[in-house]
Amino acid sequence: MPSLPYDPRTTRLRSFHDRVSAFRKGADTPRAYLERCLEEIENREADVKAFVTLNVEGARAAADASTERYARGAPLSEIDGQPMGVKDLFETEDMPTQCGSPIFAGNETGRDAALIAGLRQAGAVILGKTVSTEFAFYNPGPTRNPFDLACTPGGSSSGSGAAVGAGFVPVAIGSQVVGSLIRPSSFNANFGFKPSFGAINREGAYFNLSQTVLGTQAASLTDAWTTARVATRFAGGDPGHVGLTGDAALPDAAAPACLAKFESAGWERTSSKAQAKFDTLLATLAEAGAPMVSRREDARLEQFEQLMTPALDVTNGLCGYEARWPISYYHRRDPGSVSENIAARLEAWNYITDDEYAVMLNKRNEMRSAHDALSNTFTALITLSAIGSAPVGLNTTGDPIFAVNSSILGAPAINLPLLEDEGMPLGVQIIGYRGRDRELFALAHWILQKCGSAT
Amino acid sequence: MPSLPYDPRTTRLRSFHDRVSAFRKGADTPRAYLERCLEEIENREADVKAFVTLNVEGARAAADASTERYARGAPLSEIDGQPMGVKDLFETEDMPTQCGSPIFAGNETGRDAALIAGLRQAGAVILGKTVSTEFAFYNPGPTRNPFDLACTPGGSSSGSGAAVGAGFVPVAIGSQVVGSLIRPSSFNANFGFKPSFGAINREGAYFNLSQTVLGTQAASLTDAWTTARVATRFAGGDPGHVGLTGDAALPDAAAPACLAKFESAGWERTSSKAQAKFDTLLATLAEAGAPMVSRREDARLEQFEQLMTPALDVTNGLCGYEARWPISYYHRRDPGSVSENIAARLEAWNYITDDEYAVMLNKRNEMRSAHDALSNTFTALITLSAIGSAPVGLNTTGDPIFAVNSSILGAPAINLPLLEDEGMPLGVQIIGYRGRDRELFALAHWILQKCGSAT
Repeated sequence: MPSLPYDPRTTRLRSFHDRVSAFRKGADTPRAYLERCLEEIENREADVKAFVTLNVEGARAAADASTERYARGAPLSEIDGQPMGVKDLFETEDMPTQCGSPIFAGNETGRDAALIAGLRQAGAVILGKTVSTEFAFYNPGPTRNPFDLACTPGGSSSGSGAAVGAGFVPVAIGSQVVGSLIRPSSFNANFGFKPSFGAINREGAYFNLSQTVLGTQAASLTDAWTTARVATRFAGGDPGHVGLTGDAALPDAAAPACLAKFESAGWERTSSKAQAKFDTLLATLAEAGAPMVSRREDARLEQFEQLMTPALDVTNGLCGYEARWPISYYHRRDPGSVSENIAARLEAWNYITDDEYAVMLNKRNEMRSAHDALSNTFTALITLSAIGSAPVGLNTTGDPIFAVNSSILGAPAINLPLLEDEGMPLGVQIIGYRGRDRELFALAHWILQKCGSAT
Repeated sequence: MPSLPYDPRTTRLRSFHDRVSAFRKGADTPRAYLERCLEEIENREADVKAFVTLNVEGARAAADASTERYARGAPLSEIDGQPMGVKDLFETEDMPTQCGSPIFAGNETGRDAALIAGLRQAGAVILGKTVSTEFAFYNPGPTRNPFDLACTPGGSSSGSGAAVGAGFVPVAIGSQVVGSLIRPSSFNANFGFKPSFGAINREGAYFNLSQTVLGTQAASLTDAWTTARVATRFAGGDPGHVGLTGDAALPDAAAPACLAKFESAGWERTSSKAQAKFDTLLATLAEAGAPMVSRREDARLEQFEQLMTPALDVTNGLCGYEARWPISYYHRRDPGSVSENIAARLEAWNYITDDEYAVMLNKRNEMRSAHDALSNTFTALITLSAIGSAPVGLNTTGDPIFAVNSSILGAPAINLPLLEDEGMPLGVQIIGYRGRDRELFALAHWILQKCGSAT
């Protein structure tokens, strides 16, 4: 087994929050921080290919302005000066938004999506647009996994995952409708945060389906939370939803009343070696004081596990129906503009009836109700983030079977980069309850403490 | 009192559905129909100013293709060949989308919004983009009321209302977040349909807030329903919502079990003359067999009336919070690009806290629950669509106090052009229950029968 390029118990990736006091004291500056990021990019981006577009000069100007604010003792927020990559699905006033599709080549909308506008108001430095799979669906982009260039970075937030994994930026923004945040976070050893449905304003992002959420991929748990929280302070949640609430500092660690080991449909696709590593981690947490229950000890959990078995199929059906516009529209208008990978699925999607869609929505609601009912018993579900580390090959983004569960539940999830599999990163996933994202971070904080990891 | 330019008991406006059999027989053609529309536009558009952009050549080509399909006996849908105006808030591949704002001058996105794509798939002829107020908010465009050019056409779907009122097109598409479909329908004697929240896919429309719905403004009740239903056959509802369902033909007339006369906060702003006309209509319906109850006869209805009193304030607060992006963003970036009319409100909007927003969302939910609870007793609420006919002056779009109720409830509403006030059109509004749009059309059909009006 090759030695890991990171220590799974602490993060050696570049985090941001721990530099802020140095910025305040003048011992470090956002501009210097940005230059260190650019040095890493200079060294490895040609191999990793995390970015579609970089705006180096714009970023330097923004970092200089931030440096000047710290010098005046007046930073705009907790993330003032933070260099960031943003998935190439979100509108940006200074860079095109190309959605991994030739249809959007050079697409300039001239405005910032709500979240991007919020990040800039907070002083964040938007360094570049990161690679998305085509329409955030199946067809991978050119990005490679920074831990092994022969492997996929995962997707659809491929470039965001890899940019953080490679240490190019401390935080990147991605989105998830099936498994597009949690899976690349797992493959790239990020702290990935997929918020509750509606928790972060997604207006001005392309292809918003009924499970789509925006989220953070970060070098530290603190950065994942603080960035999301600060951004919503300015941008809010989706219209009709109260976004993330509370303090921008990482919530204090809180021990769980009880954790449910959630095997889900992914468990049987997982190697026994990876299963064993996960079980060892659970044993560590149990010893540290977390009561741990599995489907074999709890009838209601067993029932929930069974109900969740078709989570991926139902999600694929829902997304297929919802993606008919605009993808079928584009395909009809210009058949060559949509990859064969997606075109091959359109035929089936176009035949999903309104009645079938209604049945799937009902199934999803049933899953959500059953999940809500667990909240009195379990602080969170704990599970894997993927069936193993990133597979070899760039023509797939890997299996989303574990990551899909929080998507269909509309529940918050966090990937913790605590395991390795075949010498590569593998994440542990905790899933909380809708609207209770803060509590999930308090649990994540506790888990990291018990694993001796930095936050 | 000047004589009305239309007979309020029948519609003399040009409707479409009643020409289809002539198209099928070859006695009339969609191209000839379009030319008749263009003749009206030629005659009066310079005064009415309903359109921002017209695509006459594109429309002629689409109408010719439709004519050819009827000749082959193969129309694409019930609305094949139907000329339409669409609010300049929805993306169109062949025309700019300018949102009533200089910020969007010449804005070409190169694609159709979901609903527009659905309409084209159904064979509809998209003739032009109709005037919207700035961002679909307060600042009126140049459109004038075709029944009296000194009066407002209402808004924000100003051009759509006027285009149908003037007989330029049989159907236009608008949107409503406060009162933007029902009010212009009332002022322009249209059959206006504001569907249940989520009933029509709004992806690819700008400024979607948490109450925004797309809907139809039509020269006949049949056209209002058929167009909406056919469009959703292709475009579906919003992601996560089953859209309109059932047959595209106008539902059979169905007598109500009981109607609630819903006075709401608008009643006391209404002239006693207009109140009397509305009461006369209710008496007609009661005689025709509709049991009719008001707040004075039913304690639960009285309670609901009281709960609904702040509907406009709560809606304005919700919309103000939600409109911070992108309007505040634009204003920050380029202060001169946002009208003073809106800029003056931004300051207050920016100070609405997350907690205040949460309180308003809860209030809205409370209203919705109370409304749902009425469904066992009342087939629908019946009320006015506006406090009177269109006011004189083009610097206001009129009072939305009556139209806001269905918006905050997320419930379907239909404007029926059955009254006149001061010699100008005034509409009667019926409000049904969320997701039960078809039933509301069955009631509307019954009401028109009892009033001796065409459908």
